[in-house]
Amino acid sequence: MSDQAALRPGRGRRPAAAVRRAVLAAAGELLFEHGLGAVTFEKVAARAGASKMTLYKWWPSPGALALDGYFAAVEDTLAFPNTGEIERDLTSQLHAFVRLLTERPAGRVIAELVGAAQADPELAGAIASRHTRPRRALAVDRIGRAQRAGQVRAEVDPEVLVDQLWGACYHRLLLPDQPIDTAFADALVRNLLAGIRP
Amino acid sequence: MSDQAALRPGRGRRPAAAVRRAVLAAAGELLFEHGLGAVTFEKVAARAGASKMTLYKWWPSPGALALDGYFAAVEDTLAFPNTGEIERDLTSQLHAFVRLLTERPAGRVIAELVGAAQADPELAGAIASRHTRPRRALAVDRIGRAQRAGQVRAEVDPEVLVDQLWGACYHRLLLPDQPIDTAFADALVRNLLAGIRP
Repeated sequence: MSDQAALRPGRGRRPAAAVRRAVLAAAGELLFEHGLGAVTFEKVAARAGASKMTLYKWWPSPGALALDGYFAAVEDTLAFPNTGEIERDLTSQLHAFVRLLTERPAGRVIAELVGAAQADPELAGAIASRHTRPRRALAVDRIGRAQRAGQVRAEVDPEVLVDQLWGACYHRLLLPDQPIDTAFADALVRNLLAGIRP
Repeated sequence: MSDQAALRPGRGRRPAAAVRRAVLAAAGELLFEHGLGAVTFEKVAARAGASKMTLYKWWPSPGALALDGYFAAVEDTLAFPNTGEIERDLTSQLHAFVRLLTERPAGRVIAELVGAAQADPELAGAIASRHTRPRRALAVDRIGRAQRAGQVRAEVDPEVLVDQLWGACYHRLLLPDQPIDTAFADALVRNLLAGIRP
């Protein structure tokens, strides 16, 4: 495939941002439909109608491209709401997360990415910098607002809540033994908000 | 190495249970000192003073042997106390778990085992049946006692607490971004027992 692929009939070359969006969408689709091994420069370029040369220029490896495709695909699903009521916002965000983890093969793809990262420091670094840290920051920011609104005690560390909400879901994904569902998500929020003491 | 290695001078053949203990201890030591790749039938047999033939009879693969060595090594460290006070017992158990996860290379070995399991259903099954499920059962049993003693609300699902305590630690191990320490363990227990609402 040549750079001609980046041309659309009668409309000239697509802007770089549009090509990038199309490439990321194609990478995310291939990843979720067929798994990590299906994300090759060849297949992504063909599906996105982009040139392989462009992909080589923008991504160092198919793995890096797959990761960016993954993040682009889940970005909207995992937006963090702010209705002003922390219980409602945590619950609806966790419901979206639970849906993502239980979709097939999305949940397995996430588990495989995190699994592969345990023996691949470069992949681990990419996941941390492009996914874990920004998503933590969004949750911590939302919980901080709840603290200032008097809905969460000021001395609670929001970082720890991230591990007790989303981390608890990852635990069921990576060491599967109990179901991941909305009842589980609701119990996570309830246990923390109300406390478990009688 | 021949079956002579199972003989000790002047005392005849060791009982099978003693050989098994020595083999598991040797496998656990090699695993924690040098990582998963160091656990070979050859090296474990040599360190345990056992015959390679015995190891072939008892374990289907070096991976299965490494896993059993791991479980034997952490069994004592991860015993579940019951002093009658749930806050104290959860805290001391989590402190032991946090110590294990932050010891090097034990923490990395656990992360690598869980990571490898994401693409290896047999390893995942072994971890679940020999480790995750029995350890969940111990925690659920201890929390159930606390419920009957009136220290935890009866309608709380103990399984969910496992994810919000030990699962939260696994989250920091597998998606590292925040420290795993005793202050973290204390916050996990405090958030759940007291609740985070003002």
